[in-house]
Amino acid sequence: MALIVQKYGGTSVANAERIQSVAGRIARQAEAGDRLVVVVSAMGDTTDELLALANQMTDEPEERELDLLLSTGEIVSSTLLAMALKHIGHPAIALSGAQAGIGTDKRYGRARILKVDPHRVEAALKRGNVVIVAGFQGTTEELDVTTLGRGGSDTTAVALTAALKAERCEIYTDVDGIYTADPRIEPRASKLESVSYEEMLELASYGAKVMHPRAVELGALFQVPILVASSFVETPGTLIGGASMMEQRNKVTGIAGDTDVARITIRGVPDQPGIAARLFQPLAEGGISVDTIVQNASVERLTDLTFTVTRSDLGRAMEIVKPVAAEIGAPEVLADTHLAKVSVVGSGMQSGPGYAGRMFQTLYEAGINIELITTSEIRITCLIEEAQVPKAVRALHKAFELEEG
Amino acid sequence: MALIVQKYGGTSVANAERIQSVAGRIARQAEAGDRLVVVVSAMGDTTDELLALANQMTDEPEERELDLLLSTGEIVSSTLLAMALKHIGHPAIALSGAQAGIGTDKRYGRARILKVDPHRVEAALKRGNVVIVAGFQGTTEELDVTTLGRGGSDTTAVALTAALKAERCEIYTDVDGIYTADPRIEPRASKLESVSYEEMLELASYGAKVMHPRAVELGALFQVPILVASSFVETPGTLIGGASMMEQRNKVTGIAGDTDVARITIRGVPDQPGIAARLFQPLAEGGISVDTIVQNASVERLTDLTFTVTRSDLGRAMEIVKPVAAEIGAPEVLADTHLAKVSVVGSGMQSGPGYAGRMFQTLYEAGINIELITTSEIRITCLIEEAQVPKAVRALHKAFELEEG
Repeated sequence: MALIVQKYGGTSVANAERIQSVAGRIARQAEAGDRLVVVVSAMGDTTDELLALANQMTDEPEERELDLLLSTGEIVSSTLLAMALKHIGHPAIALSGAQAGIGTDKRYGRARILKVDPHRVEAALKRGNVVIVAGFQGTTEELDVTTLGRGGSDTTAVALTAALKAERCEIYTDVDGIYTADPRIEPRASKLESVSYEEMLELASYGAKVMHPRAVELGALFQVPILVASSFVETPGTLIGGASMMEQRNKVTGIAGDTDVARITIRGVPDQPGIAARLFQPLAEGGISVDTIVQNASVERLTDLTFTVTRSDLGRAMEIVKPVAAEIGAPEVLADTHLAKVSVVGSGMQSGPGYAGRMFQTLYEAGINIELITTSEIRITCLIEEAQVPKAVRALHKAFELEEG
Repeated sequence: MALIVQKYGGTSVANAERIQSVAGRIARQAEAGDRLVVVVSAMGDTTDELLALANQMTDEPEERELDLLLSTGEIVSSTLLAMALKHIGHPAIALSGAQAGIGTDKRYGRARILKVDPHRVEAALKRGNVVIVAGFQGTTEELDVTTLGRGGSDTTAVALTAALKAERCEIYTDVDGIYTADPRIEPRASKLESVSYEEMLELASYGAKVMHPRAVELGALFQVPILVASSFVETPGTLIGGASMMEQRNKVTGIAGDTDVARITIRGVPDQPGIAARLFQPLAEGGISVDTIVQNASVERLTDLTFTVTRSDLGRAMEIVKPVAAEIGAPEVLADTHLAKVSVVGSGMQSGPGYAGRMFQTLYEAGINIELITTSEIRITCLIEEAQVPKAVRALHKAFELEEG
């Protein structure tokens, strides 16, 4: 009688038929003997429709009211799924985030889970129910409803898995696992049986947008095994975490491309202490996540400072950077949105030499110019022309012998 | 600084434009110095749409999940109204039924309010907010969401008025007050400035479907003055309750027609003690409200028993009555759905003679046959042919001198 937490995303519960199909899957698994807690997102475009309603009222909806509004989307899908399960003869109960004991801080729209009180979920399981939990939401101590922001339902599922000490968390989505590369770019990409949390974080951050990094980080923190699989076809997915991933593999796991990149270059920055802080502090305060920072070697006490942000943050980032650049006497700020990242990811890379060299050689042979290079312990990333990403991914996938079979 | 509780129904908040219009009205009243608590229903057909979704899942949705589902409708409208108010510069906060302290029993779908804990509403008022409360819903001690059933939002508003000791409750709807007769039937009907709770109950029960009797009863219990007025035009409405209504008036208040009537006649019932209980006990247990009961004079120790129910209850009532009739040896059960009620209502009637006679004479002169007569302290009702209701209403409206001007 394994206890398993599952999560179904918005496309998996987009309409009545899909909800009934998900109910059928859950029922089969429950009949096989598993005890199940199921976290659901809002149906299809519900959240966007509610946001549109709010924007008809005001350009800047109050965050507290917006969260209370948006939370209704997951309550609707969770109650419908519970009804569908009961209809096919399975005891089920739907719980809002508050009822499921998801306690958060008061940061509306991007609340963090502070604690999970699982006693009601446990009591409902004990009575033989499949417990359906509205994802993406929680409640403050004052009973105000909060939403968790991006990746919210994934985070709800992982947090519940940890709090219930469940065997694993299963994320059902519209892809059937994590691949060695985006299959739309590289048809010979193969599905990974397992990846480590760290590899998943690098792959997800760098374009394999299957699961939000935040939920993966939480999984890593509590060592929650996470299975990513398709909610439409019943094939094995990819297991994130699990036992001794680090030793199992000694090579590259996958190739990730990420086109959501904008590069900002500040020309002629005085090479003095404190300059970087004066630039990046206001960006952090503006909530802008700066990804890659490179400072070129200084020429005549002047240097160029380059960093990347997501394209949606570019406008705000330029507004913040330009006056600071003027203050410190840097004559020019350039923005570039024609670049993209391509990354080679693998836990084995930190212990094996030669990966970087092979990557640069492969890109060179494919005629692709490298604009910028950054590395982490398990990743090497090159900034290249966006148009060349497919060619780069295919060339690297071949060079690192990731092809199926 | 009067404290006033207002309620806006579903048609008043049916879309973005109407919500903005309601926000404008509220803002003007708040600027005039009133402190306001506003109860809202779900937008337009939202509740029906959610019910339809539930019925796509199962023919008989579990009541607990259905209530959780339906409660989202009022949360959506309340948050949008709060946003619209803030947009035009008015501090506002939206509260779910649970957040507003509406505590109920566990009878899902038709919960009764057990207590109102107004501390959060009062605190929000103190901070200068217009407090928007999601109507129609409450919460049990276990934090399960309940809905209040028919007339739920009216009941929320009246209960909050009592708990907050507010000056009055204002019900804004798609009619602009209580009339001496249905204006669609009698164009010369005039709007009443005020009615007593008892008169309102008789008028509403007998067809003037403006406000649910349950909310009026609650208003009577706590002596809450209730103003019924239009949410579309700014004209004076009708005040229910208020000071010493009973003495003010010494005549007929209005004429009510009610076509939601089915008559059941059981022929040849043995004239013995205990027979009525054997018939009506199972109807009560089946949740069927029996309205008018008449037993004819006994002939040869056999009698006919006639009573009325609403048309939607007729099928179930016949299923219950037929086997009982067979058991007690009554040979025949007849159902009739071609009848309707017409009533003369007025607090003054109990102290003045001659009202019944004038009613019967008027119907006789109009060529209308009376099938059955019942009376209460402030009402005389005749069962007549349904097709003759408009003629009867107009004749009685004239006979009791209710015409405008």
